[in-house]
This record gives sequence, C-alpha cells and structure tokens, in this order.
Amino acid sequence: MKTIDAADLKDFVKEVFLVMGCTPEDAVQAADILIRAELRGIGSHGAMRLVEYVNLWKNKRVNVRPEIKVINETIGTALIDGGKGFGLIVAPKAMRLAIKKAKEAGTGWVAVRNSYHFGIAGYFAMMALEHDMIGIAMTNANPLVAPTYSKEPLLGTNPIAVAVPAGKEPPFVADFATAPIARGKLDQKFAVGELAPEGLLQDVNGEPVTDPDILSKGGAIKTLGGDKEHGGHKGYCMTSIVDILSAVLPGANFGPLVVPTLGYLAGEKATEDKGIGHFFGAIRIDAFQTAREFKDYMDLWIKTFRKATPVDGKDEVLIPGDIERNSEEKKIEDGIELPENVAKNLMDIARELDITGLMLK
Amino acid sequence: MKTIDAADLKDFVKEVFLVMGCTPEDAVQAADILIRAELRGIGSHGAMRLVEYVNLWKNKRVNVRPEIKVINETIGTALIDGGKGFGLIVAPKAMRLAIKKAKEAGTGWVAVRNSYHFGIAGYFAMMALEHDMIGIAMTNANPLVAPTYSKEPLLGTNPIAVAVPAGKEPPFVADFATAPIARGKLDQKFAVGELAPEGLLQDVNGEPVTDPDILSKGGAIKTLGGDKEHGGHKGYCMTSIVDILSAVLPGANFGPLVVPTLGYLAGEKATEDKGIGHFFGAIRIDAFQTAREFKDYMDLWIKTFRKATPVDGKDEVLIPGDIERNSEEKKIEDGIELPENVAKNLMDIARELDITGLMLK
Repeated sequence: MKTIDAADLKDFVKEVFLVMGCTPEDAVQAADILIRAELRGIGSHGAMRLVEYVNLWKNKRVNVRPEIKVINETIGTALIDGGKGFGLIVAPKAMRLAIKKAKEAGTGWVAVRNSYHFGIAGYFAMMALEHDMIGIAMTNANPLVAPTYSKEPLLGTNPIAVAVPAGKEPPFVADFATAPIARGKLDQKFAVGELAPEGLLQDVNGEPVTDPDILSKGGAIKTLGGDKEHGGHKGYCMTSIVDILSAVLPGANFGPLVVPTLGYLAGEKATEDKGIGHFFGAIRIDAFQTAREFKDYMDLWIKTFRKATPVDGKDEVLIPGDIERNSEEKKIEDGIELPENVAKNLMDIARELDITGLMLK
Repeated sequence: MKTIDAADLKDFVKEVFLVMGCTPEDAVQAADILIRAELRGIGSHGAMRLVEYVNLWKNKRVNVRPEIKVINETIGTALIDGGKGFGLIVAPKAMRLAIKKAKEAGTGWVAVRNSYHFGIAGYFAMMALEHDMIGIAMTNANPLVAPTYSKEPLLGTNPIAVAVPAGKEPPFVADFATAPIARGKLDQKFAVGELAPEGLLQDVNGEPVTDPDILSKGGAIKTLGGDKEHGGHKGYCMTSIVDILSAVLPGANFGPLVVPTLGYLAGEKATEDKGIGHFFGAIRIDAFQTAREFKDYMDLWIKTFRKATPVDGKDEVLIPGDIERNSEEKKIEDGIELPENVAKNLMDIARELDITGLMLK
C-alpha cells in the first residue's frame, strides 16, 4: 500500500485531465469525483479508473471538450447529449440541470446519452442534499450480468444511488450496484487466490461457479438474489429498469450493445457508439412536506433503524451511507491508501504524460 | 381448486365493496384491481385479500367513502391524504393525478399517506402505458423483512412496479416485491409441508432457517440477496428506498411503525395510524425522445433479451411481464382457479354480507 494525501492525489488527477485537454473547471470537477470515491472507500471507482480514462482518450473514444447539448426539454425534464465526453464531466452538469428543473416543477429528471463511465453514482445523488432535495442517479455499464435463465451477460452492474436529507442525523446515502458483487471485488479475490461466494457467478454454460476470474472466460455475474428460487428475477427486473431508464429512454447504447471499455468483453457488438447513458433525478422535499417536518421524520427513520437489535457479533444495524461517511472522515485525516498496482499505474501515467510531483509513500 | 369466470368473480367482489358502503364507481375500480391480480396469476394479491379488506372495514380501520385531499402540489407533484380509504380506491386516483401532472411537467409524481394495501403495484404502473408514459408505483407494507445485521423485521416486502411501453412487442412490466420471497409463497409452502429455500429466512435470533412459518415465531425474511456476502445490503438499500419514498416523504407510517393489518405481527407499535403510503410516477416518453423512436428502441431491447441463449432446460429468457401476460390470456379464456381455502373465505363473506349468486365450481 502507498499512502497519499487526498489534496495531493486530487492535484495529480486534475493535472492528468488538464494534460488530456480538459478545461480547468472540468479537470477540477473530474478530480473531485474520483477523489470523493477514494475518500468514501470505493477505490474501485477512484484513482484505479484513471488508466481506463486515459485509454479512452488515447483511443480517441472521448471528446475532452465535449459539446454538451440539451436535445429536448420540458419544465421538469431534459434529454442531454453528452457529446462523447467523460461521464465525470457530463454527469455533474446533468445533475445540476435536474436540480434546477426541480426548483420549478417539484421534481427534475435528466436522461443522458453519449456519455461514459461517471464514477460513483452517489456523488451526483448527494449534490441534491444541500438543496433539501432527494437525489437519484443511475447509469448503465459494460454487460457482465446474465438475466435470469440467460447464458449470456446482457446487463451491466448498473448502479443506483439515492441520497435523502435528514435533520440532526447524517443523510441516508444508498449507492449500490444492482448486481450482487462488483467486478472490482472479483478482481481483488482473484489477485489473492480467493474464491467468490457461492451463488453469485455462472460459467459460459450458465452453471454455478466460484471462480472469480470467470468473466474473462465467458461467464457472468448472476442478478441480485441469484437463481429464481432465491429471487434473482427481482434483481433482473431492477437491473433492467436501470438499463431502460439510463439507456433506452435517452437513446444510449443499452445492455449488450454497450461498447466495452475494458478487456473483459470479447468483441464489440454495437455498430454505433452512442455511449452509455445516465438518469438523474431531484425531488424537492417541500413539494411534499415542509423540509423541517420531513427531516424530523427522516431522523426518526434513521434512529429507529440504527437502534434495532443487531445480530450477535455485530455492534449495530447500519444506515446506508454510514460506512462511506466513516471512511471519508478517516481518510481526510490519514490520507488515501492505494494498492501497489494502482500506485504503479499512476506513476506510469505520470511518466507518460510528463506530470511531475506525484509523491507516493 | 374451484373455478370461476373472471367476470363473475368481479361482480361478486364489486358487491362486497358496495355492501361495505363504497360508491359504485369505487366498488368497480376495487374489483377491477383484485381481478386483474387473479388474471395475472398473482393470487396472493387477489380474491384472498378480500377477507382482510372486510376485516379492516369491520374493525373501523378504513373509511369506505374517504375524503381524498391534495395537501400540497406543484406543477409536477402532489401530496395526497388518502383519508384512511382502501388503497384500491385511493391509489388509482393518485396515479391518474401523476399522469395528469406528467402531461404538463414531463413527469408527474404523487406521494400518498393515510392509505391501505393497494393490491398489485403493476396495475397502477400499467395505467401509464396508454398515455405513452413509463409508469412507476411502489408502496410500503407490514414489517416482515430484517435489514442487514438486524434481528428485527423493520421493513415491508415493499414492491416496485415499472411499466414501459413498447411498439410491436408487448410492454415491459416489472412488478416485484423487493424482498426475495412473498409472504403468500411462504404460506403456500407451510400449507403443503415444504421448507423455504436456504438463505431467505432468519429466526428470532437472526440465525438462518428454512421454516416457512418463521414469521409467526418472531423471525423475518432476509433482504433480497440474503446475507451481506451475497449482496443482501443492496436489497436492504432498495427496500429502504421504497419505504422512504412511499412513507417518510408523504408522512405515512414507515417501516416498523406500520400498524399491522394481519395476525403475523405481535403488537401495535405505532401510537398513531397514518396508514401506509404509496409513491407513483409517470414519465412522458416524448419529453425525451419521440414515442415512435423510443418504442422502436424498446422493441429492440425486448427482442435482444428474448433471443439471448437460454440455460439448458429453459426455452427462452423471459421479459418482465411475460408470465403475467400469458396468465392473463389463459385465465380470461379458462376462468380463475381459487384454492379451496380462498373459495371458502369468499363463501363465508357472501353469507356474512348476505350476497347471493357466488357460483364456485
């Protein structure tokens, strides 16, 4: 492990986006999202993704200064074309528009096409909190998940994030892949020779396996719940809904038509790259109750769940967002720990793009 | 099994609501929802619920002619107080308002408090289809589901339904409890002496069990995914989000504060009955793409998933809504089969309310 101060890592990431040609404002924004992921303990969506973003740029798959266009809008909605920009640049603008729409129409909803990987969904959902709004963010992604009864992976791990403001309690922030296990977690297990838990993976024939490297062999992640007997068809519904709202609604590449950004996927099946898509929502609390009433009631929800009797061996029932918030407080203090391979990738990028000053201890 | 023609069962159910004192219009509406559940093969939300509705009425828990009030509204949203009416009466009005709002604001969202069990969520989501809108419906429910690490059941099986219009293909209709197994399915297993699948249930100490009668012994259903290793915390997030949008946002009884309608739950924990809550949404397709573009693309989504290679022993990969649509086509033709105990309950209700003409073969 190498340790780096959050501000220093953010500076470095910003430099990378600047060298690629992004505007200073966009570079700061992109760095902020990636560093927030690191702070919140979601390293799989943090600095380790930088190599992928640089690859998209080197392969001319992204526009570093995208023309982001509103294609269609109503008082409460918009369709945005991301101009093949980094999701890290397109998504915050889309979420800001959703918040703006919500001020007028009670809720605001923005669908995005022609974008790429946007980092942690939670970042965008949380943007709504300071406006006393519930924030919602989702995206589709590379197809790695097999629908119930399918041999083929057709769906991404398609995350959803929902951030809900509270009063005295910290906000509720759920930010989760709708698939049972993240690709990054499988990689970690593979690296240390561990098997995946039973019931989460299938091989090329749809047979259950625990090999964490199965995705590179034509296998797939099962939907949340696993097989049908365990409710996996509900996970299939959930992940499909994210794909439809994020990709079919705006006209992005959906499911298996997503053009892979990664080596996991065998071939390009899409004839046209309309990017991946996102869907953002903002719900103004005071369109329903007053912010005060709602926040008091949300505090009661949080306290009720936190004080439930935990199972033996656990200190308490957690509220979505607790783990990430604790991580954030700790890492702002102690710095961010990067695995050796991620540190090495960053050093390689620094060398390649001629960026000096990256200090990893 | 007893068989009955759908139209005859609908007439009978309508009579029951009329005898309880509902308006003719509301009685027809309530009957339509329950019969639609039967036709779609979701018997757990069909005629077998009638005894529960009658009990709510006998115990003066519902107003059969509720004053349904809009408490707060914007151009795109509304908060409705259901006046302690049957959900079957309150919910369709709320969904119609969401659709109306969407015509103006691109999307419409209506949160409801002071309501009761509304039948199948899919019914309301599907109301949006004929308007070329995506329909969304969710509700909270009696607490039977234990959050990750909790011994106590704090959440309902909190269903979500999403209906998406298509062109030549039938619509996508996902309608699913966010918990891995429905209470009704557990009852069925108990009745025939079957055990529940591994990993779905826990006893009063949070230990894994397969006893389908565990809910009556202080046990709980686990969240979708099961334990944390299998992604159960994502199921916890999902079910919580439904509880927050359906109950905290409108100010209904949330999670463990839901006043039980059923014998499963030991005591009443709520001091005040604000009913359960629902959340409805309508998304106008043409606020994003033209309906034609979207429907063609949605057809492609459906065809792509349907033609995926199925695992051995399965004919095809199903699209959410396929099973229910096939059931509906068959049962309109062949009639609705009611289990003996449900048939007996209906006969008892007929006798008690002095309704003649119920013919069960």
